[in-house]
Amino acid sequence: MDKVEAFLKENERIDDLQYRGMKIIQDETGFKFGIDAVLLANFARVKPNSRVADLGTGTGIIPILLAAKTEAKIIYGLEIQHKIAEMAARSVLLNSLSERVRIIEGDIRESDLYFKPSSIDTVVTNPPYMNRGGGLVNPSDEKAIARHELACTLEDVVRAAARMLVTGGTYFMVHRPERLADIITTMRNYKIEPKRMRFVYPDISKKPCLILVEGLKNGNPYINVDKPLYVYNTDGSYSDEINRIYCRGEYSVGGNDEPKGADV
Amino acid sequence: MDKVEAFLKENERIDDLQYRGMKIIQDETGFKFGIDAVLLANFARVKPNSRVADLGTGTGIIPILLAAKTEAKIIYGLEIQHKIAEMAARSVLLNSLSERVRIIEGDIRESDLYFKPSSIDTVVTNPPYMNRGGGLVNPSDEKAIARHELACTLEDVVRAAARMLVTGGTYFMVHRPERLADIITTMRNYKIEPKRMRFVYPDISKKPCLILVEGLKNGNPYINVDKPLYVYNTDGSYSDEINRIYCRGEYSVGGNDEPKGADV
Repeated sequence: MDKVEAFLKENERIDDLQYRGMKIIQDETGFKFGIDAVLLANFARVKPNSRVADLGTGTGIIPILLAAKTEAKIIYGLEIQHKIAEMAARSVLLNSLSERVRIIEGDIRESDLYFKPSSIDTVVTNPPYMNRGGGLVNPSDEKAIARHELACTLEDVVRAAARMLVTGGTYFMVHRPERLADIITTMRNYKIEPKRMRFVYPDISKKPCLILVEGLKNGNPYINVDKPLYVYNTDGSYSDEINRIYCRGEYSVGGNDEPKGADV
Repeated sequence: MDKVEAFLKENERIDDLQYRGMKIIQDETGFKFGIDAVLLANFARVKPNSRVADLGTGTGIIPILLAAKTEAKIIYGLEIQHKIAEMAARSVLLNSLSERVRIIEGDIRESDLYFKPSSIDTVVTNPPYMNRGGGLVNPSDEKAIARHELACTLEDVVRAAARMLVTGGTYFMVHRPERLADIITTMRNYKIEPKRMRFVYPDISKKPCLILVEGLKNGNPYINVDKPLYVYNTDGSYSDEINRIYCRGEYSVGGNDEPKGADV
């Protein structure tokens, strides 16, 4: 067993993110990160020396990408599922990021146990997309917890973010277009003003499959809707922008799952 | 002076809408309808035999297009500016639509003087886009009243619509993407749930310039975001969809003004 293999448990593999040498451990039978996490890490703006929290971090993909991309001082990844949090912590070790990335096993609904009020500059989150009512799910299923609002709702995430963010702090989220009205009203209710939004379209002829949202704690109204982001060209090849994000100086897919419930 | 010319006052002209013989009177020195009104009339779904109200009807373009396109029983156009309401009423006469289109001179903020509660099946509206704070304006300027929230705010329009709509009634609005969060929170506050939305992009590489929104009185959450609508191809020619809307069996531009404050 070589040095890298020592990090792995049964059914796990190491994927090379092809971005500044970063790697990630994933469970071949479990939930794997998708295009949504990569697009969110690309969409988020993180200031040098800032304190960042990823709510529902899963494999730790977003903290790892942000640690490589930004000069954030510290990035916390909060994950409720023990097995996944432990695996994410090993990915942090594997990348020698322990100084700047810290995985916390805990519940978003109890985030005040881990984060003081107004202690975080930027929250990023790729929360479960589907309402509790949305289809039959097995609540003990690890993938179901990542996809459905079983362990936390959109409101739980926004409430936790609003509490830990400083005034002027920023909030970055990827979600589904069907929840647009819920997203905007919930963010406003908790004084995180939606300031920027980008729709991700599979190609130029289709409905959007994802939305990227930036909010500002205690910000003023007026939202900037960016130009569209297309995943594919009409011939089925990846768009130039996706190629840029994934390959040239940005992140690589590294053998991902299909996008998390997204129809791309 | 021939029969048609008798309808005109000084500085006025008649534009042929190139749609089922419809015409419209416009003041060459005043506010002229734009692409936003045409796209809204195309976006709106009006059931046969229904009662429709256009809040802030201006030249009457939307009631005239909807009268030609749909089997609505009656379409009211409410307009606060005397001179414009009178001109719109002459356009209704010119098109022999008096049986189905009625122009009312009045204030949206006093709409209960003209419409009973729960008396309307569908509201359409192309309201002023800009906040009162948005730039220096002359409050007596007829164009400024059409563009800025001087005579009514977004909330005034939504409140009036919510009051006159039946449960299950529909609301169609065109507005600017910058106001997206205001639009969604205001509609929800007044129990008009956003159910469908379409972003209008100048072309595939630009930020959206307009949004089309459909709401349902007392509807449930979940919004359907449509495929994008592009105005131009990248070579600067009109997109196929715009050509279809304007020329082939739909409406024609008929020498319009530039879109109302929209960056297309």
